[in-house]
Amino acid sequence: MIEPPSLERLIIEFSGFPGIGKKTARRLAYHVLSKSKEKAVAFSEALLDAVEKVRPCSKCFSYAEQSLCDICKKRSGASSLCVVEKTSDILPFESSGVFQGLYFVLGGVLSPLDGVGPEHLHIPYLIERVQKENIQEVILALGSSPEAESTVLLIDRLLKDMPVKRSRLARGIPMGSDLEFVDEMTMLRAFEGRVLF
Amino acid sequence: MIEPPSLERLIIEFSGFPGIGKKTARRLAYHVLSKSKEKAVAFSEALLDAVEKVRPCSKCFSYAEQSLCDICKKRSGASSLCVVEKTSDILPFESSGVFQGLYFVLGGVLSPLDGVGPEHLHIPYLIERVQKENIQEVILALGSSPEAESTVLLIDRLLKDMPVKRSRLARGIPMGSDLEFVDEMTMLRAFEGRVLF
Repeated sequence: MIEPPSLERLIIEFSGFPGIGKKTARRLAYHVLSKSKEKAVAFSEALLDAVEKVRPCSKCFSYAEQSLCDICKKRSGASSLCVVEKTSDILPFESSGVFQGLYFVLGGVLSPLDGVGPEHLHIPYLIERVQKENIQEVILALGSSPEAESTVLLIDRLLKDMPVKRSRLARGIPMGSDLEFVDEMTMLRAFEGRVLF
Repeated sequence: MIEPPSLERLIIEFSGFPGIGKKTARRLAYHVLSKSKEKAVAFSEALLDAVEKVRPCSKCFSYAEQSLCDICKKRSGASSLCVVEKTSDILPFESSGVFQGLYFVLGGVLSPLDGVGPEHLHIPYLIERVQKENIQEVILALGSSPEAESTVLLIDRLLKDMPVKRSRLARGIPMGSDLEFVDEMTMLRAFEGRVLF
């Protein structure tokens, strides 16, 4: 398809989003052109407005428009702290309603190959929060890649001598999945962690 | 999830795209924030630039930046004209390379319930093109909804007395599909149109 250059550029921009292939990117770009100019301007404004206004919460590094995010404001004084890699990892906790405590966004996991060392993560702020606030339990909810595992090990070591419980999420078979299609590592963890009746 | 207002607005804007649900919209909005401000600005510029520059081709109503689109420019004088509902319908013809002729974007199909009558489509321009240019065949490639069918009937009637062949795409079983899952209407058309060896 021979598209005009500006349309082609817009398609390339859309392809840059995660999970958006060339075909979907094209569909989205065509959608922009099929709507009124005002809608495109509104979208562009929403985009710039969000980038302009949203900044890291000064306590948990999640997204906020003021110094503190809504969760840090509303749940101030809570005694559980859930440590996640990135802000979007907070979503499943909040949508399931399983956790009513505070969060801490680490900003990544250790990855020596990508040049990400402890100094690139928010680890010192995490330690400081645990020392200063009345945190009883730190839940390390960091995924199960080797990088995430070594990040958990490091934080665990740093917190070891403090009067705080440390935990991580259970691993096992996800709900609703067919055993036939469970991968080997998941099966290994589920078997190891089997629960007696 | 309690998101800052500007982020929430951006999520709502993304949900307005076709095929983008709330979850994907949130993922896309979070992606914007996770990247540099420069990238968001570049995306926003690409968006406004495309909306600003792209306009309908003066001959075929496809997308163009100049008076004529690239296809109308390069294939001027071709004798086949493929009539489609919207610009993006041109894509499968071009990506399969099956057609080397000209296109004409109708701008919709008749839909009395939505208030779309013949006067809202580019039908007069189509008739004019067929009269003035050396068009030998008009391929009516308009989908198979009742609205599209009645639009095809109308155009067919308008072209009937002109010295031009009229055709439509074959209907039948799509490639690679399991017969078990073919819907009734498709089976009906495929059976009716069966081809003798």
